Amino acid sequence: MKNDVVRLGRLSGERSEELMQFLSSMQADRSIAGADILVDIAHVLMLEKQKIIEEAVAKKLIRALLKLHDKGISEEAFDDRFEDVHAGIESLLVASLGPETGGRLHVGRSRNDEVATCIRIRVRDDLIRQMEDILRLRETLLAIAGEHTGTAMPGFTHLQHAQPTTLAHHMLAYEQAFSRDFDRLSEAYARVNLSPLGAAAFASTGYPVNREFTAKLLGFDGVMVNTMDAVATRDFALEVLSGLAIAMTGISRLCEELVLWSSSFVRFVTLDDPFCSTSSIMPQKKNPDTAEIMRAKTGSVAGALAAATLIVKGLPMSYNRDLQDLTPHLLRGIHDAGTSTRLLTGMLASADFNRERMAGEAGKGFSTATDLADSLVRAYAIPFRTAHSIVGRAVQKGSLDVATLDAAAGEVGAGFTLSEKGLTQAQVDKALSVTFSLSLRKSPGGPAPVATKGAVRERKKQLARDRAKTDERAGKHAKAKDRLIADARRLVL
Amino acid sequence: MKNDVVRLGRLSGERSEELMQFLSSMQADRSIAGADILVDIAHVLMLEKQKIIEEAVAKKLIRALLKLHDKGISEEAFDDRFEDVHAGIESLLVASLGPETGGRLHVGRSRNDEVATCIRIRVRDDLIRQMEDILRLRETLLAIAGEHTGTAMPGFTHLQHAQPTTLAHHMLAYEQAFSRDFDRLSEAYARVNLSPLGAAAFASTGYPVNREFTAKLLGFDGVMVNTMDAVATRDFALEVLSGLAIAMTGISRLCEELVLWSSSFVRFVTLDDPFCSTSSIMPQKKNPDTAEIMRAKTGSVAGALAAATLIVKGLPMSYNRDLQDLTPHLLRGIHDAGTSTRLLTGMLASADFNRERMAGEAGKGFSTATDLADSLVRAYAIPFRTAHSIVGRAVQKGSLDVATLDAAAGEVGAGFTLSEKGLTQAQVDKALSVTFSLSLRKSPGGPAPVATKGAVRERKKQLARDRAKTDERAGKHAKAKDRLIADARRLVL
Amino acid sequence: MKNDVVRLGRLSGERSEELMQFLSSMQADRSIAGADILVDIAHVLMLEKQKIIEEAVAKKLIRALLKLHDKGISEEAFDDRFEDVHAGIESLLVASLGPETGGRLHVGRSRNDEVATCIRIRVRDDLIRQMEDILRLRETLLAIAGEHTGTAMPGFTHLQHAQPTTLAHHMLAYEQAFSRDFDRLSEAYARVNLSPLGAAAFASTGYPVNREFTAKLLGFDGVMVNTMDAVATRDFALEVLSGLAIAMTGISRLCEELVLWSSSFVRFVTLDDPFCSTSSIMPQKKNPDTAEIMRAKTGSVAGALAAATLIVKGLPMSYNRDLQDLTPHLLRGIHDAGTSTRLLTGMLASADFNRERMAGEAGKGFSTATDLADSLVRAYAIPFRTAHSIVGRAVQKGSLDVATLDAAAGEVGAGFTLSEKGLTQAQVDKALSVTFSLSLRKSPGGPAPVATKGAVRERKKQLARDRAKTDERAGKHAKAKDRLIADARRLVL
Amino acid sequence: MKNDVVRLGRLSGERSEELMQFLSSMQADRSIAGADILVDIAHVLMLEKQKIIEEAVAKKLIRALLKLHDKGISEEAFDDRFEDVHAGIESLLVASLGPETGGRLHVGRSRNDEVATCIRIRVRDDLIRQMEDILRLRETLLAIAGEHTGTAMPGFTHLQHAQPTTLAHHMLAYEQAFSRDFDRLSEAYARVNLSPLGAAAFASTGYPVNREFTAKLLGFDGVMVNTMDAVATRDFALEVLSGLAIAMTGISRLCEELVLWSSSFVRFVTLDDPFCSTSSIMPQKKNPDTAEIMRAKTGSVAGALAAATLIVKGLPMSYNRDLQDLTPHLLRGIHDAGTSTRLLTGMLASADFNRERMAGEAGKGFSTATDLADSLVRAYAIPFRTAHSIVGRAVQKGSLDVATLDAAAGEVGAGFTLSEKGLTQAQVDKALSVTFSLSLRKSPGGPAPVATKGAVRERKKQLARDRAKTDERAGKHAKAKDRLIADARRLVL
Repeated sequence: MKNDVVRLGRLSGERSEELMQFLSSMQADRSIAGADILVDIAHVLMLEKQKIIEEAVAKKLIRALLKLHDKGISEEAFDDRFEDVHAGIESLLVASLGPETGGRLHVGRSRNDEVATCIRIRVRDDLIRQMEDILRLRETLLAIAGEHTGTAMPGFTHLQHAQPTTLAHHMLAYEQAFSRDFDRLSEAYARVNLSPLGAAAFASTGYPVNREFTAKLLGFDGVMVNTMDAVATRDFALEVLSGLAIAMTGISRLCEELVLWSSSFVRFVTLDDPFCSTSSIMPQKKNPDTAEIMRAKTGSVAGALAAATLIVKGLPMSYNRDLQDLTPHLLRGIHDAGTSTRLLTGMLASADFNRERMAGEAGKGFSTATDLADSLVRAYAIPFRTAHSIVGRAVQKGSLDVATLDAAAGEVGAGFTLSEKGLTQAQVDKALSVTFSLSLRKSPGGPAPVATKGAVRERKKQLARDRAKTDERAGKHAKAKDRLIADARRLVL
Repeated sequence: MKNDVVRLGRLSGERSEELMQFLSSMQADRSIAGADILVDIAHVLMLEKQKIIEEAVAKKLIRALLKLHDKGISEEAFDDRFEDVHAGIESLLVASLGPETGGRLHVGRSRNDEVATCIRIRVRDDLIRQMEDILRLRETLLAIAGEHTGTAMPGFTHLQHAQPTTLAHHMLAYEQAFSRDFDRLSEAYARVNLSPLGAAAFASTGYPVNREFTAKLLGFDGVMVNTMDAVATRDFALEVLSGLAIAMTGISRLCEELVLWSSSFVRFVTLDDPFCSTSSIMPQKKNPDTAEIMRAKTGSVAGALAAATLIVKGLPMSYNRDLQDLTPHLLRGIHDAGTSTRLLTGMLASADFNRERMAGEAGKGFSTATDLADSLVRAYAIPFRTAHSIVGRAVQKGSLDVATLDAAAGEVGAGFTLSEKGLTQAQVDKALSVTFSLSLRKSPGGPAPVATKGAVRERKKQLARDRAKTDERAGKHAKAKDRLIADARRLVL
Repeated sequence: MKNDVVRLGRLSGERSEELMQFLSSMQADRSIAGADILVDIAHVLMLEKQKIIEEAVAKKLIRALLKLHDKGISEEAFDDRFEDVHAGIESLLVASLGPETGGRLHVGRSRNDEVATCIRIRVRDDLIRQMEDILRLRETLLAIAGEHTGTAMPGFTHLQHAQPTTLAHHMLAYEQAFSRDFDRLSEAYARVNLSPLGAAAFASTGYPVNREFTAKLLGFDGVMVNTMDAVATRDFALEVLSGLAIAMTGISRLCEELVLWSSSFVRFVTLDDPFCSTSSIMPQKKNPDTAEIMRAKTGSVAGALAAATLIVKGLPMSYNRDLQDLTPHLLRGIHDAGTSTRLLTGMLASADFNRERMAGEAGKGFSTATDLADSLVRAYAIPFRTAHSIVGRAVQKGSLDVATLDAAAGEVGAGFTLSEKGLTQAQVDKALSVTFSLSLRKSPGGPAPVATKGAVRERKKQLARDRAKTDERAGKHAKAKDRLIADARRLVL
Repeated sequence: MKNDVVRLGRLSGERSEELMQFLSSMQADRSIAGADILVDIAHVLMLEKQKIIEEAVAKKLIRALLKLHDKGISEEAFDDRFEDVHAGIESLLVASLGPETGGRLHVGRSRNDEVATCIRIRVRDDLIRQMEDILRLRETLLAIAGEHTGTAMPGFTHLQHAQPTTLAHHMLAYEQAFSRDFDRLSEAYARVNLSPLGAAAFASTGYPVNREFTAKLLGFDGVMVNTMDAVATRDFALEVLSGLAIAMTGISRLCEELVLWSSSFVRFVTLDDPFCSTSSIMPQKKNPDTAEIMRAKTGSVAGALAAATLIVKGLPMSYNRDLQDLTPHLLRGIHDAGTSTRLLTGMLASADFNRERMAGEAGKGFSTATDLADSLVRAYAIPFRTAHSIVGRAVQKGSLDVATLDAAAGEVGAGFTLSEKGLTQAQVDKALSVTFSLSLRKSPGGPAPVATKGAVRERKKQLARDRAKTDERAGKHAKAKDRLIADARRLVL
């Protein structure tokens, strides 16, 4: 391997293979190597503009960097004996251009600001992708909701049949939750997409660098102003992991329901074969493996957050090497959340919901008993608690016919019977019907078909707004990158 | 105790003391009991307006509720034998007003939406306070920075003397970090301050409730639209705890530095006596106990987040009783973060920084060696890496005089000596001086006095903007609450 | 309040109420106040025996301490203005006996070793109780298993009906898991029950203290030898919390099953009313609230572990005040795990398992298809994978009659049909019967009635051994405490 | 790739690349592939012995398996399109031997027991290695302690100079802590090294398998008896991760001290160059990077535990696919803890402790003030608290000469002066000398040279005992493996 330019001249002694791997960030660096070339190019363009290096030197550096950008970075740069890819790339340049030229790349910066800049570029791109993935997940949920605005199903509390609802209402609940996850990541994005470059080791630099210039070249929305803060903070990593962990708890809840709903007991949904497995010994099994592993990924992402929190706790200013070990947890969390989001979308889009089975269960377990109690309140102006007690007692007795209700009224000391107030069995049956129950719950946000139709409409508008905003951000990056490379090519024409 | 109106009529069997405490949320409910009365009042005003209950009934209920509001809730309502304070209060009302009236309070809602509403009221108020506390902490940091724009001190990386900086620069780094913590909580606030009321058990209600009306009465900025989402989600709790945990990692870092800086080795700061303790056996000790406990509180808050994440993971829709057990963790996290923020402000405001000691250390450990290397680059146009290698080798040899630098140049194969290029010892000494080093680092965000003065000015403006926004929010709550009580009193005049 | 003897003479300045509460460990100290009196008595007896204090002084101190032991510690000692209860008690003694006598209590020790000793006494007692609670839980599981050695039920993988098993087999799985939890805590106990007393601040003491003597008086099994380790480590707290968190994951799994089994879909179990709740709005509901909250307690205990880990991470030697903040998490974890264990026992003991419903489901979902495949392997010596493929294909086709099996054999390319090998429908039916399936799985640890009967027998023996060991330990403590108080009384006779 | 024998015949539909990777455990499976071959061999030997398969079939299978064992498993078996390596290997065998033979390998077992067996084999081997690594770490600590039994240094509480101690005492504190880590892992080992094989899917099997036989062949100490427990539990993984996380907190504390001690302020230790790095911009820096990254690894290991806990929480019986996702966290935790332990040993062994610097600091900061107070107690029989107050006040006044002590006595209201009791400055000076202070602290576990010498002796004996036990376990595995392969070769001779 080429000599490590960073250690040159200062430290002696050989390192064992295990020690080199321990100190090296190379595995995680593969994720930021592409960003590093962009950062190098922007830095050189700035150095030239500010006359910190001469044009001739800048041209040689830019030519070499464009080559890496166009043809890819050779494996040599990722040798574990380099502490990181930044040292690897710089060493390659020094080897090919000579120290007189290659040795000028790093002027006016430090690895501390360089690595923070690369991570932020990588993470903002990942966030854009994650937001796009959430948008597609929400779109899928809205599509299912749109098909099932009137599909009755039982709603559950405490995993008990509670009251009838519609599949649309259920899916819309998740869509709203994922919409807030989108918002959180979107706000985190604004704190991620700021440039630390030029902060150098932490104390800025005596060279007349232009931080706004490199920030703009690299598509950042602004600069991490305080230079100590710029290199020392990893709050953006904790925030991104927190946002993803929260999103994963939502995903885990939906996966839990898919596992339950595809069980032999429930059979509300049939998941598409590719998302399932069978048993090596029980040929009849069709297991919801994808949903199970996805549920487990909540652990992976929240565990990454726990690790990152432990790492930064109690670190003094400014940069400490501990921070290097945080990056793999960040990237792992992003990867697991992203894959889960995408596969969940596919799993839902291909799922087959069983309308008959859901409808059949919607009225079970006295799930409309509340509606009956409410009807009694409305019809006879009896207090809510009294109606509740009468119906509850009747449920305990196992039936909701008028005779049982009358008996129940006596037992709870109501002081009247319902038949004497004129209650008929037909009225009872109507009050207990699922369709009637649903039709009443028509205020915005409720399960009635009229409400869910309206909600799907509203939510699609919100989705479109969120998509437009994300597209704009993604476009800004792409444009900045194109312009950066074009500027670089122009310089060396 | 009064009969528990909720269990009445449905379940039999006695509960042990331990079981009652296990199921009861009473301890946490003390934190939301005040909010519950407001929610009850708003709910009754809405029921009356929507003609769901008669005016006469509403008046009786409002009178009883205003009494609880004015005179406080009697201890009886907090009996552990009630499952929660909502059951406790309702039972008191039924006992005093009779079932005919008291039994109508709960119509059109459920404990699921009621408790979610109460928690959100409590948490939004706590968030306002937390934001105010962060504003005061930032104000204090800016005040210290303002006093110390030119106070030289060593900056550290890897806990090694790295380059000189100023105390202002260091404090401003924390101010910026806490400013982002403020932003995160401010954005979380917008997702917290939405009303779940009217979602009922999860499926909304057949009564013609007016959710926007109660939301407005209670000072919410809007409604949690989807009613299943409204009662089932606790993402706002995870988000608040995440935001606080991130803030606590920042606090832990500052506390670590205060512990280090007040150690016998460093002596950069003397903490005020009330924040310290002595030893029961070593009378000479003055220990930075407050900073240590505060550092430990990071564990408490992040542990609360870990607990909350574990609780919601894999829960199916909609409400599950597990959620009850999340609230104490949320309240504990808020309490610990709030106390830490307030006490840290006091500890910093009363801290005595030792200018001489800091200045004396600023130039130690070859901390301006980079500046020398940079000077060589600027003066003689030699490559950065070469200059770095020469100076590094000279440091290894123990001195930065011209002779040593020349010898070092030879050893790293520079191909020239510095004295032949005209380097004098006076030039070396100037390049190595702390004042000179600092004066060069004057771009925005850097440690130079001119930069820190500008930064203090800018940050104070940002602080004022953040304060104005927070005051406006706090004012909106106060006004809403006053109006709600006034409306209630008008009804029963 | 009495003057705080610890701060006297060294530190000045007033503390705010909030600061005092922040620094004070008083709330947690209530849990160790009783232990503290025992530690004080043992310490004074040792001081007298070693002639470090005079007999007359010792008698006065012992008399005062016995009074606190007999009549309880007055509330004054718990004033938040004392940093901890140790300062509180010592201050009371100084106030009542005068500094000449009260001021000699603390000779030869420090709060660092004192508090570590008190926590270990408290925790070892808690561990004994926790182990007893686990023993009762295991006893209950064995009792249920004993009643249901032949109760067929479906076993699940991936929440899908997999193969038939017996309720005994299922309960025995949990009993074995909880048995390992017992073992872990039992081994942790051996590391907890060691005395730090006499380590003083961390460097031991110049007084000729006798650490073995106080260890024996206090019922410890030995001494924490290295004095720096003795005060600085909290690994025993992490270990106890780890053991409890692991036990809670087991409890959470059983609770998940109780929630599932008591759902309307499954109905394998009816939980006793006191462990359930109804809804405030849906009178028909019977919710498994206790199981849900218990499931959530996993979060509380694992969150306490996360907090404690964060607290100790990166602390230098020896004592740091951060450690004070760890104790409440430890006590909270112990409390939540203990309550959960006890209530789970009661919930299981009073649960009503529905044999018919379980048996009815045992054979569903082609759950004995593996047995059919195995029968084919045994009867016709065809390879396992081939048999598996044939049966799997037949399941996919929806039936396991001979004709379908033959068709399936053709489709998977078996090269033969089963009817040509002589397979009859009667043979198929026998192979598919639940009773036949269970009867074959009779090796130790399997679900066959003969196997579960044997297992219950074996496990009861193990339970008795574990109980004997726990009783012996508990007895040793009780005896030591009695002897300590008797020795103290004898001195002051 | 070969056809996946597991999915054959049951499930249809294509999987995307991303989905295949998501479902596949291949990356983690590389860690258990070697164990899987052993498990396959033992299983076939058992099937033959029990006459479940014919000898001829067994011979063919064994021959193929020995080839894999001898020549390594071909890359084909690790194709991501197989769900796991077990399916990969079996598919290879079916392809090479034909379904008639290869299809008989899996009879009488399931992947559920197979994978649990492989993980346990891997983890027990890892535990042996981890225990050996801890033994070497302890050996190194004892070697340092042995060299420095009399090396005075300041001891710290709250990072303040507290009392003098010796480097030996400090190192022995860590050795004792790591010794308990050893014990915890050693006890965990006993619960890891049990065989789940033969539990099949969870309900055991109808074939007359011999579980004790395979357990013995594979070097297990016994059988996981209950077959549902055997496949469903991952408590051993949580226990191992807990033990490692606790060990890592100890490592993080020592690393924190190495970072502090190698800082410019403290300079107690010089770390060997290979364990350090320099700065890319500050050539004079020598940073303790290895210690910093190691400190961060605490986060990685504790994060793995957090992830694993989240994954198992609330899973119903028996096997769920979530468990697959736990294994990578387990392996990662083991890897990070192991590497950290080994590198810490090397870092300590090559560290250069600065005796003069430590001795020079030992008496600073009034660190022997307690000894002076104790001397006063012993010499003049004044109460401990009074002596403490006098000395404390004198420290506050900045000097410990007799005049200041007398003044202090007056100020705290002692009622006497020390000079009137005969105190001379020479006596004060002797009491304050570090050597005198240390010499008094000679009880076992204390810092006096005589005590540390004895402790090193005792601890070396314990180390030898622990090593003997570990060697015996490691030997047992090696022997079992050799015997297994020999038995297999004998069969196919």
